[in-house]
Amino acid sequence: MTNPTSFSKTNRGNYFEDFRIGQEIVHATPRTMTAGDVAVYLALYGSRFAVQSSDAFAKSIGLPGAPIDDLLVFHVVFGKTVPDISLNAVANLGYAECRFLKPVYVGDTLSARSEVIGLRENSNGETGVVHVRTTGRNQHGEIVLGFVRWVMVRKLRRDVAAPTAVAPKLAGHVAADTLGACLPKIDAGAYDVTSSGSPHRFGDYALGERIDHADGVTVEEAEHQLATRLYQNTAKVHFDGFAAKQTRFGRRLIYGGVVISIARALSFNGLGNAFKIAAINAGRHVAPLFAGDTVYAMSEVIDLADVPHRKDIGAMRIRTIAAKDVQSAQLTAIPGDAATTDGVVLDLDYWILLPR
Amino acid sequence: MTNPTSFSKTNRGNYFEDFRIGQEIVHATPRTMTAGDVAVYLALYGSRFAVQSSDAFAKSIGLPGAPIDDLLVFHVVFGKTVPDISLNAVANLGYAECRFLKPVYVGDTLSARSEVIGLRENSNGETGVVHVRTTGRNQHGEIVLGFVRWVMVRKLRRDVAAPTAVAPKLAGHVAADTLGACLPKIDAGAYDVTSSGSPHRFGDYALGERIDHADGVTVEEAEHQLATRLYQNTAKVHFDGFAAKQTRFGRRLIYGGVVISIARALSFNGLGNAFKIAAINAGRHVAPLFAGDTVYAMSEVIDLADVPHRKDIGAMRIRTIAAKDVQSAQLTAIPGDAATTDGVVLDLDYWILLPR
Amino acid sequence: MTNPTSFSKTNRGNYFEDFRIGQEIVHATPRTMTAGDVAVYLALYGSRFAVQSSDAFAKSIGLPGAPIDDLLVFHVVFGKTVPDISLNAVANLGYAECRFLKPVYVGDTLSARSEVIGLRENSNGETGVVHVRTTGRNQHGEIVLGFVRWVMVRKLRRDVAAPTAVAPKLAGHVAADTLGACLPKIDAGAYDVTSSGSPHRFGDYALGERIDHADGVTVEEAEHQLATRLYQNTAKVHFDGFAAKQTRFGRRLIYGGVVISIARALSFNGLGNAFKIAAINAGRHVAPLFAGDTVYAMSEVIDLADVPHRKDIGAMRIRTIAAKDVQSAQLTAIPGDAATTDGVVLDLDYWILLPR
Repeated sequence: MTNPTSFSKTNRGNYFEDFRIGQEIVHATPRTMTAGDVAVYLALYGSRFAVQSSDAFAKSIGLPGAPIDDLLVFHVVFGKTVPDISLNAVANLGYAECRFLKPVYVGDTLSARSEVIGLRENSNGETGVVHVRTTGRNQHGEIVLGFVRWVMVRKLRRDVAAPTAVAPKLAGHVAADTLGACLPKIDAGAYDVTSSGSPHRFGDYALGERIDHADGVTVEEAEHQLATRLYQNTAKVHFDGFAAKQTRFGRRLIYGGVVISIARALSFNGLGNAFKIAAINAGRHVAPLFAGDTVYAMSEVIDLADVPHRKDIGAMRIRTIAAKDVQSAQLTAIPGDAATTDGVVLDLDYWILLPR
Repeated sequence: MTNPTSFSKTNRGNYFEDFRIGQEIVHATPRTMTAGDVAVYLALYGSRFAVQSSDAFAKSIGLPGAPIDDLLVFHVVFGKTVPDISLNAVANLGYAECRFLKPVYVGDTLSARSEVIGLRENSNGETGVVHVRTTGRNQHGEIVLGFVRWVMVRKLRRDVAAPTAVAPKLAGHVAADTLGACLPKIDAGAYDVTSSGSPHRFGDYALGERIDHADGVTVEEAEHQLATRLYQNTAKVHFDGFAAKQTRFGRRLIYGGVVISIARALSFNGLGNAFKIAAINAGRHVAPLFAGDTVYAMSEVIDLADVPHRKDIGAMRIRTIAAKDVQSAQLTAIPGDAATTDGVVLDLDYWILLPR
Repeated sequence: MTNPTSFSKTNRGNYFEDFRIGQEIVHATPRTMTAGDVAVYLALYGSRFAVQSSDAFAKSIGLPGAPIDDLLVFHVVFGKTVPDISLNAVANLGYAECRFLKPVYVGDTLSARSEVIGLRENSNGETGVVHVRTTGRNQHGEIVLGFVRWVMVRKLRRDVAAPTAVAPKLAGHVAADTLGACLPKIDAGAYDVTSSGSPHRFGDYALGERIDHADGVTVEEAEHQLATRLYQNTAKVHFDGFAAKQTRFGRRLIYGGVVISIARALSFNGLGNAFKIAAINAGRHVAPLFAGDTVYAMSEVIDLADVPHRKDIGAMRIRTIAAKDVQSAQLTAIPGDAATTDGVVLDLDYWILLPR
């Protein structure tokens, strides 16, 4: 029987010493994606890619209907992992090998699982780094998304011995020849670049080309909270303004995924036909974003690749830089290490697909 | 014919002297509930109960799909009553005998009616207390929700004589043996506590047990306004910041239902399988909430009951306390009278159902 | 091949010298309207017209289901024109001949085209006025909405010669006998004025009658940004708080359509059965609205008209005034020229339909 005064039912999250290599974690809560989610997401970011915006357009290129925005799928799957993986995280350190494997449509139910694939206690004995490989599945059990992320997690009991350090082998980037899986063949000839909002197909981009996404978006507390809750992401730092007063920032932190979604929506201006994210190779939240900050973005083409057996599409690897309170026109001079540039908040390396 | 300068079309709401015992009021506006409403509600509160979150999960236990969150149904029905009952209210004093009687699904259309069941003029001759019993129905005329609430309403003309005082007899709480109506029999064996996010079934809770819901949520003006409008609740105090400057608070008041929804969403942490609200026995808004305040919550198990003819579920009576800017870990020492504790904003007594 | 450093992919919008009389512009992005859009719009404005709120009510009068709010349709179509027409606009000067031609339902996909019908360079040689006629169509190619708007747009190159000035002939208002197209015949006898929230049918209004819409709504930054993004309207002035600091206002401007939607939602109080906007004759944004302002509204009946072959409905022409931080009860004395009255932000002249 439960001790009536124990408060034993509360989930306090896992601490570093609770993780084991090979451990499988089934995350709560399964979530059916609806037209409502799509609309709220649209109101939050204003994305304009025609394939996701219009059932009629999606059907014209051979899809059954408008698929759900890839990043909305990513955030929902990511959100599920938070109560088990990062409730006691000090920092989200990075992600890798993120692959979108199957389109998600209205009516699909997403669930998530993670496997612990890396553990390394820090020398201070107070924290450790946990690597997990997370998969998101639909109601048929098909994997729609997979990614690795690593977080620094607190230990609860310093006296627990450090585990044997295990470092996962991670690819520097997702191989281009695996990117086709995320998108059924489309009728690229039927893809109407007039109504899509950009004349530029795959062949129109050049290696090293830079794209100024031009617009800026100021983020409000209500907006990032609505977004983060839509993903059922419960990380306390995004919602608890009272507790935040005692932190070094003194205020709520915006979920890094909000910045990614803003940068992606802004990227429509210049990448209007890059409707499909195939993979995220790497992402770093270089600095935190706070309510009241204005986000700008620019991108650079860092690779162009054929996708095997696919004449309909080509893959473009993009590095997108988002900055706060630094207009995108000033982002042209950013050096290799974005972290050294004032105002940069995101350095994202990802593969997008465009019709040929 | 209308006098062109009379402004006679404006609904100024009912005053105390306009109510009659036995009066039936049909409220505007019927409202079809959609997947959009569910998503907006989710973005506003971030609830994670698996049955409401996932069609697949709901079907696995024998329901036709994910039902709409009980409190969203409550707020929509409540909202309809505002233009007729409480537009000239000085205060919402309480509610009782709130019973959820039938699940509501996407596509159902809700409408509301109220009967005046209590009237008592205050000795100052300026206000009176009105009790109404409100029912919410679906498009088939089936009652999905019923509750009593009482409000203090202004008189417009002091010279109107006081009506004979009538005090309704109200139950102290809803009897446990009537709670089964709100939920068809479920397949409790198929209820998957791994994906639902909590291992604790009905039998795992003990009388007197306390549950710290741990997290805090700071509320923004935009959020409570979006919520209250979603319910088509038109009470001026929630929206009119200009007029609010002349009130004793000097700012907009947050609809009390927002606090209830926050407390309920926070309660997932510790009550993750209590997916169904069967009844609300009593609720008191002990103090007002304002934008910028951070809400925390804790609960205490005050009764555990069998539901007749139901082996699938058990009923748990909970007292949930929500406070502002007082973290839940500090709420353990709250005495019987929550109103005397600094920061408490809500004292809610309700029945929830859990799978056995 | 593209010059890698050219930033040539960014859409910088059209400048005055880019427009030609007779030019046809197909706007991006087609957009499928969903139950999610309806819910977000409802949360933003709280509209309560029964026909749009309830599928059951809409069916009771003979419609196939609840049509989408006319102004949501307007804003979505308008939003599509922004990247092509008004990205370099100095000011939105007005609109005329706005006609709603066919109801839009959940599942319909909207797209937009514009024709340039007027050009006049200003004497300063730096700007010019562009008139466009915009049509919104559904997925069947049927026109659901048409309107003319004119904007003052910057020239990029002062050395480009001024075009021959062309001024379109515009009707002062939409003729009443064309208004029936927007609404199939309804069963006015089945229209239930009890559940619709207002007892007043077409015959109950008088020419010159004034209606105080009573309530006030304070607008937050998050709200108008959510609204404007829902419409995929990308006008920088609404979103970029950092750049706005350098403008004469020093802050973000609220999209004028937000004010129109607020005034329309407030107008339910007094015009509860005027569920259908048939046409907008003229609209002027007399002054800008900013976050934190509180909007009030009043209306005056300026015409009452039969619609040919329609015994079910009558057409009422309304002038609605919205003001900020001036309560509606004080708006009664507004003179013919609203612009001279302190606080007025909107002067809107439109046709609404009511059941007889």
